[in-house]
Order: sequence, then C-alpha cells, then structure tokens
Amino acid sequence: MTERRHDPELRGFASDNYAGVHPQILDALALANGGHQVSYGEDVYTESLQQVFKHHFGPAAHAYPVFNGTGANVVALQSMTERWDSVICAESAHINVDECGAPEKVAGLKLLTLPTPDGKLTPELVDRHAWGWGDEHRAQPRVVALTQSTELGTCYTPEEIAALCDQAHQHGMKVYLDGARLANAAATLGLPLKQFTNDVGVDVLSFGGTKNGMMLGEAIVVLDPDAARGMQFLRKAAMQLSSKMRFVSVQFEALLGSDLWLRNATHANAMTQRLYAEVKDLPGLEVVRTPQANALFAILPAEVTERLQKRFRFYTWNEHTGEVRWMTAFDTTEADIDTFAAAIAEELRR
Amino acid sequence: MTERRHDPELRGFASDNYAGVHPQILDALALANGGHQVSYGEDVYTESLQQVFKHHFGPAAHAYPVFNGTGANVVALQSMTERWDSVICAESAHINVDECGAPEKVAGLKLLTLPTPDGKLTPELVDRHAWGWGDEHRAQPRVVALTQSTELGTCYTPEEIAALCDQAHQHGMKVYLDGARLANAAATLGLPLKQFTNDVGVDVLSFGGTKNGMMLGEAIVVLDPDAARGMQFLRKAAMQLSSKMRFVSVQFEALLGSDLWLRNATHANAMTQRLYAEVKDLPGLEVVRTPQANALFAILPAEVTERLQKRFRFYTWNEHTGEVRWMTAFDTTEADIDTFAAAIAEELRR
Amino acid sequence: MTERRHDPELRGFASDNYAGVHPQILDALALANGGHQVSYGEDVYTESLQQVFKHHFGPAAHAYPVFNGTGANVVALQSMTERWDSVICAESAHINVDECGAPEKVAGLKLLTLPTPDGKLTPELVDRHAWGWGDEHRAQPRVVALTQSTELGTCYTPEEIAALCDQAHQHGMKVYLDGARLANAAATLGLPLKQFTNDVGVDVLSFGGTKNGMMLGEAIVVLDPDAARGMQFLRKAAMQLSSKMRFVSVQFEALLGSDLWLRNATHANAMTQRLYAEVKDLPGLEVVRTPQANALFAILPAEVTERLQKRFRFYTWNEHTGEVRWMTAFDTTEADIDTFAAAIAEELRR
Amino acid sequence: MTERRHDPELRGFASDNYAGVHPQILDALALANGGHQVSYGEDVYTESLQQVFKHHFGPAAHAYPVFNGTGANVVALQSMTERWDSVICAESAHINVDECGAPEKVAGLKLLTLPTPDGKLTPELVDRHAWGWGDEHRAQPRVVALTQSTELGTCYTPEEIAALCDQAHQHGMKVYLDGARLANAAATLGLPLKQFTNDVGVDVLSFGGTKNGMMLGEAIVVLDPDAARGMQFLRKAAMQLSSKMRFVSVQFEALLGSDLWLRNATHANAMTQRLYAEVKDLPGLEVVRTPQANALFAILPAEVTERLQKRFRFYTWNEHTGEVRWMTAFDTTEADIDTFAAAIAEELRR
Repeated sequence: MTERRHDPELRGFASDNYAGVHPQILDALALANGGHQVSYGEDVYTESLQQVFKHHFGPAAHAYPVFNGTGANVVALQSMTERWDSVICAESAHINVDECGAPEKVAGLKLLTLPTPDGKLTPELVDRHAWGWGDEHRAQPRVVALTQSTELGTCYTPEEIAALCDQAHQHGMKVYLDGARLANAAATLGLPLKQFTNDVGVDVLSFGGTKNGMMLGEAIVVLDPDAARGMQFLRKAAMQLSSKMRFVSVQFEALLGSDLWLRNATHANAMTQRLYAEVKDLPGLEVVRTPQANALFAILPAEVTERLQKRFRFYTWNEHTGEVRWMTAFDTTEADIDTFAAAIAEELRR
Repeated sequence: MTERRHDPELRGFASDNYAGVHPQILDALALANGGHQVSYGEDVYTESLQQVFKHHFGPAAHAYPVFNGTGANVVALQSMTERWDSVICAESAHINVDECGAPEKVAGLKLLTLPTPDGKLTPELVDRHAWGWGDEHRAQPRVVALTQSTELGTCYTPEEIAALCDQAHQHGMKVYLDGARLANAAATLGLPLKQFTNDVGVDVLSFGGTKNGMMLGEAIVVLDPDAARGMQFLRKAAMQLSSKMRFVSVQFEALLGSDLWLRNATHANAMTQRLYAEVKDLPGLEVVRTPQANALFAILPAEVTERLQKRFRFYTWNEHTGEVRWMTAFDTTEADIDTFAAAIAEELRR
Repeated sequence: MTERRHDPELRGFASDNYAGVHPQILDALALANGGHQVSYGEDVYTESLQQVFKHHFGPAAHAYPVFNGTGANVVALQSMTERWDSVICAESAHINVDECGAPEKVAGLKLLTLPTPDGKLTPELVDRHAWGWGDEHRAQPRVVALTQSTELGTCYTPEEIAALCDQAHQHGMKVYLDGARLANAAATLGLPLKQFTNDVGVDVLSFGGTKNGMMLGEAIVVLDPDAARGMQFLRKAAMQLSSKMRFVSVQFEALLGSDLWLRNATHANAMTQRLYAEVKDLPGLEVVRTPQANALFAILPAEVTERLQKRFRFYTWNEHTGEVRWMTAFDTTEADIDTFAAAIAEELRR
Repeated sequence: MTERRHDPELRGFASDNYAGVHPQILDALALANGGHQVSYGEDVYTESLQQVFKHHFGPAAHAYPVFNGTGANVVALQSMTERWDSVICAESAHINVDECGAPEKVAGLKLLTLPTPDGKLTPELVDRHAWGWGDEHRAQPRVVALTQSTELGTCYTPEEIAALCDQAHQHGMKVYLDGARLANAAATLGLPLKQFTNDVGVDVLSFGGTKNGMMLGEAIVVLDPDAARGMQFLRKAAMQLSSKMRFVSVQFEALLGSDLWLRNATHANAMTQRLYAEVKDLPGLEVVRTPQANALFAILPAEVTERLQKRFRFYTWNEHTGEVRWMTAFDTTEADIDTFAAAIAEELRR
C-alpha cells in the first residue's frame, strides 16, 4: 500500500511549485473520473472549458491545455513564428533562463535578450533589437515575449503592456505573454484578466494553472486568431497533448469557473506582502524590489542566509550579491510567515 | 461549482485511454498532497520510486517519469542516438504513425520503417535497413525500436525479443522498447517484467502508466546505463519535466508498488479474450489477429460497423478492408462485453 | 606550386559527379572575376540570371542559387511546408536515401515513402499516404516530391507528372521536383523545360548544375510564387547562401544562357544509349531498366563485376541481386564506351 | 555567349567578400579539371590537402572542407556539443549576428552572448555565463566560441587565447575559433598559425578561404581529435559536403601550400593600415578602434558618409553613432586607398 512519505504541514519559501494541490482541484479530479471519455481533448470537460476561458478573455479566445509552462511557451511561440524568426525577451525570462534551451532546440528560435533591472521590457529596450526585417542574415524579430507577473516578482501595468503591444504591432511583430503567474498579476492589479491582456493588445498568452493550485496544467490562450496557426499540430508534435485530457481541463474549470484562481493568487500575494511588512525594516536586510506578486527578493549577509537555509527552504538568487528569493504560495499561512519573519530577524541579530 | 458532465457508467471500446483513473490512483494523489515538496523530481515520492522500478527491472534500472508516451519515446530515442542517427521500426509503430512527426521534428531522427503483418519486427525485416554504417550519406541506423504489446494487439515472446536484441547489438545498435502497454504484455506472457526486457537485452524502455489506470504518466526506464546519456537534460528540453512531479511519481508507486498494474492489465486482457470468445465464430465477422493483449481486430461489413458505431464507441482501423479495433480497459466489465457482443451478433444478423 | 595530381584523361562510370567542369564554365568563372561585386547575390550576374531562368520557365519563375542538391531539396521543402507537415516520396528518392537524414534533421520533416519498381511515383502510390489532413496525430502530407530524371535512370512523361500534380493539388498538396538531372530528362523527352514542369503543374523545382557540367551549384526555381515562402531566409539559415555568388550564377548563365545544358545532357544520355546498345544482348548480362537518361542498370555475375571494378570505376547498386549502375557524363567519349563495352563482353566471356 | 557584365577594375571598401578570386586560385581550378575523380572528398586533391593542413596545424590536425563560413561554424559547433549544450560567444560574433539563426535552427544550440567593446571575449566576461553544469534547467555551457580576427577588426594575442582556453578547459568546456579571417590575424601577429591556435589550446577552428582570395570554401580543422565527433555525418547532414570536392580542396592547396594565404592577408592588412595612416588625423573623423586586421571602423558625420557612399561602396555599421566600416581585400591597391582617403578628406572638408 502506498504510504505518505512527507509532512503535509511543512511548507517553505522556495517556490510556488513546491506547493501541492488545492482540495477543490482534487475534488474536481474525482468528479471527472469514471466512465469513458474521448481522449486527446474531445471530452466534455475540455469542450466546456472553452466557455470558461471566453468568460475571462472574450468570445474570440480559444484555449489549448498543455502539460507545463515550458510546453506552453514553446508551442505558442512556434504557432506565432516562421522557421526563420526570432523572439525578443528579457534576459531574465523563463524562456531564456530556465528551459534548457527548448525554444532554440525544439522550436529553432533565436532569442534576442535584453538586460532589465526588474524583469520588465520597455519600448526603449525592445528598440535595440527591433530592426533588420528583410535582411536575410538576421533571424527576423517576430514576437515580443513578456512575462506577467515577471520572474523578478514585478508586474506590468496595463499601460506598459499597451505601449509594448503598440510598438510591436507597428513593426509587424506580435506579443506573447508568459502567464505562468498571470493570476498573481490580476490580483495585484485588481483588474479582470482581459483588461491587461487582450484589451491592451496581447495576441497570445499562457495561463498558468500549476502555480495557482492545480496539480499540473497550463493553457495556451489564443486571443487573436490571426496571430497563431497550427496550434493543434504543434501541441501534439511538442508532446504536450494529454490523452486523458479531461483531467487537465477539469482542473482549469475548477480554478477559473469560480473565483478560486483569484482567491489563491490574492492569498499568495498577501502572504508576500505580510512577509515584506515584517522584514523590510530589519537592519542588515535590503529588499531589492518592492514585491508586486508572490515573491520577495532581498539581500542578506551570506552567513545569515546559510543559517536560515538550514531551517527553511528557499533559493539564493545571486551568489555574488547575496540576493535571495522568498516565494509564497496559495497554501502559505500567516503563521508560516510570522515564524519565518521571526527567524529572519533572529538570524540577522546573531 | 464544478459539476459532473458525463455518465460515469458509460464505457466504450475505442481506446484504453478513454478510461478514467483507478480509485487507488486517486487515493495516492490525495496522499501525496499537502505541504511542500521540492519540485522537478527532487521530492520523496520520486526518490522512493526508484526502488519500485529496481524491484521490477533490476538494480541498474533508473526511471525518469514523463508526461506522456510520445514524450517518453522522443526523449528516450534522443538519449540513445547521435544527431545523425536513424531508428528502425515497424511501419505501424506509434512513433511512425501517431506522433505528428515528433521524432523527426523534435529529435531530428530519421525512421527506417518496415511493413509487418502483425506489428512485430523480425531479424529478417531489420536486416533490410541494418547496413551502411560509416557511409556519410546514410543516417546511421542506431536503434531498433519495438513496441510491446504492439499497436496491433500482438505480443513478442522473450525469445523473439532476444533475437532482435542479439542482432542489434552485433551491429552496434541498441534496442528501445515502447512499453505504452508493457503491463498487458506481462499479463499475456505470465512473466515478470524483467524476463522479457532486460534479461533478453533491451537497453531502454518506456513503461506506460496512462493506459494502465493512471491519470497520466509514463516512465522512461534505462536498463543499460551505457545505452543512454543526457536524459535529465533531454527530458527538460523536451518539455517533459513535471514541476510537481510527486503527483506523477506517486501514481507509479501506487501502480507498481503493489500488483495493481498486473491486475489492471490482466483484467483488460481478459475482457478482450471474453469478447473474442463471444464473437469469433459469428457469421459475417472475421477476426484478423488472435488477440494477445487488450485489443481485438475484426473485419465486419461496413453497414454493420456503421450501425454498431451509433450504439458504441470504437474505431474503424482500415476503411478499405472494413477492419475495426475493439479495445478493453482496466474498467471494462463483463457486462459491458456481453452487451457489446450481443449487439454485434444482433447487428450482424440484421 | 600546386601540381596536377590526376590523369585528366581517365574517366569511369561511377557517377556524373566524378566528372570535372566543362571548359566553357571555367571560362565563365574567369570572366566574372576581377573587381568588386556585391556579395550574397546582389551582384550583376545573379541579377541577370533571373532572365535566363524566366526564359526557360516563364515570367513568374524566380531562381535561388544554392551550393548543392541536398541544400536545394532541404531549403525548397521547408519553403513549401509548415513545421508539422510531411513529404510523400519514392523510397529510392535522394531525399530519403542519400542525404544523411537532412530533411528530417534540418527541416524536421517526416518523409512518407513508397516502394516503386522504377523510382517513379504514381497517383495510385501517392494515394496510400494522401490522407489524414486535420488529424493532429499525423504529420500533415503537404508535398509530393518527384525526381526527374529519377535516381533509377527513368523519366516521367509530362502526362505522368500532370496526373501527379492534379492529384496533389486536389488534396491541397504541392509538387516539388528534384531536378538534379532535369537536363537529362529534357534531352530524353525532347521538350523544353517548361513543358514538363510548370506547364503540367509543378510548383517548385531544383535545377541541377553540378551533374550537368558546372563546378558546383544548383538552383531552386519557384514556379508558383504562392507555393513557397521565406526562401531567402531559409537559404541563409540552411547555410546555402554563397558570399561570392557571382561565381555560382555565372556558371548557370554559361550553362542555361546557351544550349550548353542541353548539349551536355544529350551527350551524356547518348553515351548511355551507346553502352546500352553494345551490351544489352550480351549473354550473362541482364539490363534491369531500359535507360531513359544517363544511367544504365544491369545485373551481372558477382565475379564479373569484381573483375570489371578492378579495371573501371562503377558502383554495385544491390549486393543481393548483383545489380550495378553505370553512369555517363557530359565528358564521356565514344571511345570510353567502346572500351568499356568490350571489357564487359570480355569479362563475361571469361 | 556569356559576357562580362561588370568593371573588373572597380573596387570598394564594403567587404572582403566583394573581391573576386586570386589568379593563382583560378589556375588551380583549371589544373584540377579534366578526367574523373571520386566525388564527396575521396579525390586525390582532398587527400593531399590533409598534409597541407598538418604542415600548418600539426600532425593531429584534420581538415574538412565545407562551402561557407556559416556552414563551418554550424557543423563544427555540433561536432563539439551534445543536443542540450550551449555556446558562449561575443554579442558581435558572426554566429550570433549574421547567420539568420542557423546555430539555433539547425544545431538547436543556445548562444550565451556577452557585450564587448572590441569583439573579444575575456575570462572575466566568460565567467558570467560559465556556470550551471548539471542543472537540467540550463542549456549546458560547452563551447567558448572566439573569432580571430574579430568581426570588429581586432586580434587576440596568443596569451589572451591561452587564458580563455585554460579557463574553458578547467570547466570542461572546449574552445572553437571562427577563423573566417584567420590569415589576417596571422599576418598581424607575425606568427605561424599553430602558435596562436593549437599551441595555446584551441580545440577546433575554421580556416576561411573565401575572404582570403578563394572563390569559395572554408575548412573546419579539428586540432584535438577528442573534441569533435561525427564530423563527416554532420557535414553531410548540414548540406556542406561538396560532390566535386576536388575543386574546393585544390583552392586550399593553392592558398595554403604556398605563402599565397599570407601574402594576401598581409596585403589586405597593409591596405587598411595605409588607409588608417591617411585618415586618422583628419578633422571630423574619429577612428573607433585601432585596426589590427583588414577593417577600419570610424565615426563620421552622417552627411559626409552619405556623400561618400555615393562615390564608394561601404557599410554603415551603426546608424545611431555614425560608425562606418571600411574593409580592404587581397586585391585592394595602394591607388585605391589613396583615392579613397583623398575623397574622405575632401568630403570632410565640404
């Protein structure tokens, strides 16, 4: 008999994907179980899921569930490009840093990267790479790829995204938004999903379920049908087509068909704000960026970090500067935060 | 609130991936939930899973959970090849027919295909492509890829696999076994998994969890550590690395840590045999291949098939010959079979 | 000082690419030399070359010089396909047999191959693979690829090509013609190039310069501008863009701007016919296919082949059957043929 | 009859690949012509070429002729890497800027780029990307790619290359040197080729023939046989295997078998120095980098550049700063320089 091998009460601050699954998601899985359903996305749950996404992103939106964020990014970027195109993104973007080169290897795409202080592109930054169309020596810039909220815990405002979309479209480029933490951005901005995505010009995005409380699953959402092609083939060829897809889709329905997605994100963000409030003025600790989602970046003395990491799980972000990242999740509790903040204060004092 | 949208008592004969999840698998998911676990496979469930696979495949075996069968195949084949290699397989192989060209597109591999009557390669067949090493004009044959049980519902004997492995190894080639339905083969052969895989020379295989009662998940199992390299990188770059991997691994533990895998497969096979027994002598119906796993292939008059498909879900395999495929799953009941067989008889009589 | 290391009077029957360069081509190279010309195809020779190709293939034709035949094939096929498409071709096609898997590796394309007796596709053969559009599990058949003259020394009639083009177009597929030996086909058919290519529906083709007397160079010729896209980028990304392109283009001008291409091909074909006439009735020798271009395939006793290969260079085509291939080139002389035919007769008699 | 369409006395300053072919190279082509030679590199010229390269690079060196520089780079980098590796290079590197994404698209390689003032990497710069081995989320840094002389007209000293090689090797990485203008570097350094390549640790390099006076052709030279694998297959699959290779190889023999390579490069460099001497003190003109090969970079007022470009061909390097590039070639004359320098002075004065 399978046994529980872990302490279900132990939580850390390493990543929101260290968390488990929200109980309502587990319930939904049970609900979708039993009987036979057509595989590969022809099931009733995947069908009804389209309405859920249209509710959030408008009637033209179409969602393609996939397994994970790297899959969503690589499939979506292929659907938006020709074989000879390139993608403009921040140096800190997940597609550049964390995907073992999948965009290059699987999609054959060149990434044109830009250093940023906060993970956010600006039209001025994009300008540095937005040239050379028609020149056969240059992989043609075709997509500007943003992450919202960013890998550095910041959020674009709708106006900032609008400016980037306008610039991209003027150049005949498209905008892809990596929304692995789109829910966290919505919670921070206090806006419906649509208002800072399709309403401001985003062409295709991913919506991240995994970090928002699902077991696994991301959805590519095509907002402008003219901006993407071949998605169903690309998803299959990229090995992202689930056979028993009802079990991915029903998770999304549980998440996005109610306000669970927003509650989870709002809570995760609030826990980061609570931590921020408790530690920001501690002597010896410097907050690097004001948190705008569910991650707090701080600089600590190396020996403090070392002692803390013996007690709590979290990642050193930059060995050279001593920057660390603390993430909260949908299941982080106020007590978790208070205990952790007290420990930080304690170790800083030692 | 998410609602049930389907009839949990309705089952068909289209595919074993139309089935849902075995209740013990759902229980295991709940058990692994709660608390934080390191992501990307550093969790305690994935760690302990190695022992489960070693139990079945010997102490040198190492398992890499992935999302789906196409992912398992494409990652495994890359780990066994150089960029300029090719793979010998049956024309009917899943990698050739059902993966939207992923082996070619993602792995850059050429498939050297062979027509077979029953989905099984033989040394004589392999001989047709086993030549040309050192000739730079020829993608170098490096892997012989088998499927067990095959896409056509047949099983290799251990001796047949041994002969293919011997031949391959003599040529400096390796053997990959697509085991999307390996459990069904074990049930048919009445042998431990090891006896018809590593004991007879298979280098790398996949073990299919999805069709065996899991929600999703396949495992690449490296039997000969010298036969594969870079697996962890290839898995990530192929977008097959689950962040909350504990939920894939614990399903495998529930399946393979008990006899659930074998019970499920044995039952599915038995249901196919029951169907076979009930229909094989019906006038107007011709069984194409004696079933050796959980699929029955038969030739029916087109109008009979048409009427039957209005009542039950199943696939026409070959429009030209009128061949159909009937699959059974871990959750198919004896009553399902008897009802279906009666309907077949009835429609044949009309 | 560089010295001559070979006998310029020694010729064999192994391949038309064993031959050197026609003197008029060398002259053209000298003519294009001197001074500076814009690189990468913006030179005056490449510009004027377009008129030469339009003369042969009509006003809509546009030519893209590349380095070699594999390059032409892989670039052209990419320009005609999406990332998820597949290509139907004969099993004996160069793209399938002789390119080290470049279509799969570089272009990510799946080849759907068909066995043929004579290297020629027919609508009936194509039918076997022409299905499954819209099914995401199947790499989508998009191009039918022919070779003219074929790798087996045969020629399609215009009517045969027309039938294949009609079929392809009815299915929304396109037709690519690998014309590595297009000149030989024109010589055999006694028709202008246009009459058995664009006039009968071919969308894109390659014209082979190398085997027709050039030093190196093939041209992709787009006949239907709607059938290909991104050619200039694909050519560069496939490493087929020559910097000093004037030296490739001027060879084509020398070849196709006069009747040199046709004289060379006519002569090569005539030499094969001469050989055919001299050996076809020899006892112990069986001609496999009536030659229709510049290659003769024959079956000989293995010991005869062995003795002959000590005296003359040529390839064994099939070890099992004893089939050999004898090729003639633009520079093969009547004396070469007579000497070789006499030797064949002599060795057969021993 | 093919006619001369250009003025063989007109030369510009746009690029060394605008130049034609050195007469001795043309002579060599004629010499290698006539008779039949085995194709695909089994000819006597390619065979004897190995001794020429061993003379320059030592007895372990092995050369693989290819068509062009992009081909050399992409084939070589593949031979040095696994499918999941990445390559560290300068932002200004040809592989990053000028190859339409071929390293990413054809080889699937991620480039880790570094901004430099002068096109030269340093160990400090490489350090920024030299980390993360064993982390499956990161494409594994495996090759440090240098260009010598650089795209910005500078040269590495042997000591600088040695330091980079030491660093790379300590990390288990290899060093590739893009030698499209290696001859120019040798001329500048006044050193045998070996002394600043294999003697200081370079593993694999390319030697550029095209810019050094050949019609076309580059050679991949493997200095450490353990550093590369599968070259012959990768060359073919990358469409870089010439069928009539004797005509590429004999050009290299003419170039490197005498001192032609060095004379050509020395002359081209001298012409740049002459131009430098004549313009460096002109008011209104700023030399950006002291030239160390055959390119001079200068900043001019935009209107001066505009007027000059009506009279002479050259490229604007940076629209924003007004930087231009002036290149000299093996065939640039002193009179060319003097005329051009006078024109620059004249236009600056207007």
